[in-house]
Amino acid sequence: MTPLAALDYASVIVFAISGALAASRAQLDLVGFAFVACLTAVGGGTLRDVLLNRDAVFWIADPTYIVIACLVAAVVFFTAHLFESRQKALLWADAVALSVAVVAGAGVALKLGQPPVIVALMGVATGCFGGMMRDVVCNEVPLILKHGELYASAALAGPLALLLASHFELSRFLGFAICAIVTFILRAGSLAWGWSLPVYKSRPPKN
Amino acid sequence: MTPLAALDYASVIVFAISGALAASRAQLDLVGFAFVACLTAVGGGTLRDVLLNRDAVFWIADPTYIVIACLVAAVVFFTAHLFESRQKALLWADAVALSVAVVAGAGVALKLGQPPVIVALMGVATGCFGGMMRDVVCNEVPLILKHGELYASAALAGPLALLLASHFELSRFLGFAICAIVTFILRAGSLAWGWSLPVYKSRPPKN
Amino acid sequence: MTPLAALDYASVIVFAISGALAASRAQLDLVGFAFVACLTAVGGGTLRDVLLNRDAVFWIADPTYIVIACLVAAVVFFTAHLFESRQKALLWADAVALSVAVVAGAGVALKLGQPPVIVALMGVATGCFGGMMRDVVCNEVPLILKHGELYASAALAGPLALLLASHFELSRFLGFAICAIVTFILRAGSLAWGWSLPVYKSRPPKN
Repeated sequence: MTPLAALDYASVIVFAISGALAASRAQLDLVGFAFVACLTAVGGGTLRDVLLNRDAVFWIADPTYIVIACLVAAVVFFTAHLFESRQKALLWADAVALSVAVVAGAGVALKLGQPPVIVALMGVATGCFGGMMRDVVCNEVPLILKHGELYASAALAGPLALLLASHFELSRFLGFAICAIVTFILRAGSLAWGWSLPVYKSRPPKN
Repeated sequence: MTPLAALDYASVIVFAISGALAASRAQLDLVGFAFVACLTAVGGGTLRDVLLNRDAVFWIADPTYIVIACLVAAVVFFTAHLFESRQKALLWADAVALSVAVVAGAGVALKLGQPPVIVALMGVATGCFGGMMRDVVCNEVPLILKHGELYASAALAGPLALLLASHFELSRFLGFAICAIVTFILRAGSLAWGWSLPVYKSRPPKN
Repeated sequence: MTPLAALDYASVIVFAISGALAASRAQLDLVGFAFVACLTAVGGGTLRDVLLNRDAVFWIADPTYIVIACLVAAVVFFTAHLFESRQKALLWADAVALSVAVVAGAGVALKLGQPPVIVALMGVATGCFGGMMRDVVCNEVPLILKHGELYASAALAGPLALLLASHFELSRFLGFAICAIVTFILRAGSLAWGWSLPVYKSRPPKN
């Protein structure tokens, strides 16, 4: 298994958990759990593969990803009541998944020799799209839009760190690790201690 | 006309009806009717063709589909007031369309020699995506999310029946018929008699 | 720079403005501004390129588009408070962007030798999709759905005029200009003087 495939597997598992937790909040049945888990798990990578025009979407080339997402959905269906707060569990699963998926997106673009802007953007798109689909489909406000939180910013900082690491010719593995860690620290800091960037404040009353 | 093209035509017509009925509930004008009808009618098949990387999206290869969806929209624009309950008509049109589109999705994947997991998933995706776009764009709760209803489950049961039929080497036509009938019976049973699968119930208060 | 590339640049700039203004209404941070601006700016053209199966999506072939959308987002972040009404500015930026993007979509389809139905539809899809993504992601009612306004109709009238111009063998440049002007006049008339098409009115109480 290549490192990039391992990253795809890891992000599929954690995003599937976050999708299934969202399904539990929407009180769906077992098939509904599997549907939202699959959508969240493969959404970002599918967008990446379609945009980069790869030969085949990763989960069509290897359907194991779908089987895994369905198994995860089933496990969560029977165990979600064990979590003290499912919303909190969802947020942290999403943070881990974001960190891994950002690397999976930026890494593929880097390997295909795309220019830096596209590497950064593929990281952001792959990281954010699955969770965005989950929130739109489950009728929740997309996490990416909660103001006063780092989300897109965390997903952008990771790929930028990866590009820097690649510029200084660090090993690919080290670059991937740095990318995931930077993303996770920023997102976790935002969840745990309220880190944020200044948001736009309208001076005149909002219209 | 191949059987698979006939299925695409049939699902385009019935999904266009459901899209135009949704447009009537949102009180759009004639062009708005055509827009939502087209989006609903070709949404699922477009997703299927893009994901499976087919040479051309089906309605670009043959624009007749679009012409048909627009004609259907025009007919509904002038006749929707004849329905006693447009919401009920929408639900039943959607049920028929789902049953046909599920076959159109799973059938194409089967013909392309995809593995069973992908056949099942393409059935679900092709069946559910158009209606999901319709509901998201029209700001209604996606049918797929109404808890206590069979929707994704019905869309999954059909392709599973098709795979079984294909395993026992029934004729393709028989397999398609079984797939559509299984999907429709489950969805209709849910609409008419409230059939459902057990949904996730949180033991602690919902958070 | 070809005329079609110039159209892509122009529509990217004006859609990025409308996206950033929507971000200001959602009170996002600088990276959130850039995210919504990019999504709105390239959404329609991306859909066009994926559907028409072009070799590469336009902003992956030339990432300058993304850089421009990010710069626009930064400028709006620091100047949006100067607008008397950001909602009004958004509506007019969207109207200009719609007019330009409609040409960019229909023009590419025309150049690829697509049949008239597809030319018209690519105009509508390219024009409307970016703004629709912006509104769905920012949790606002999609402009395309506001009843009693011309939106999809304006986006359809432009490509029809282009097809007419092309039928009478007017120069390509003239056809593009007519297409943009027809779209803009209809949309502007709707914004300024309330022009509209008759909408569907349910005779029995809405159900």
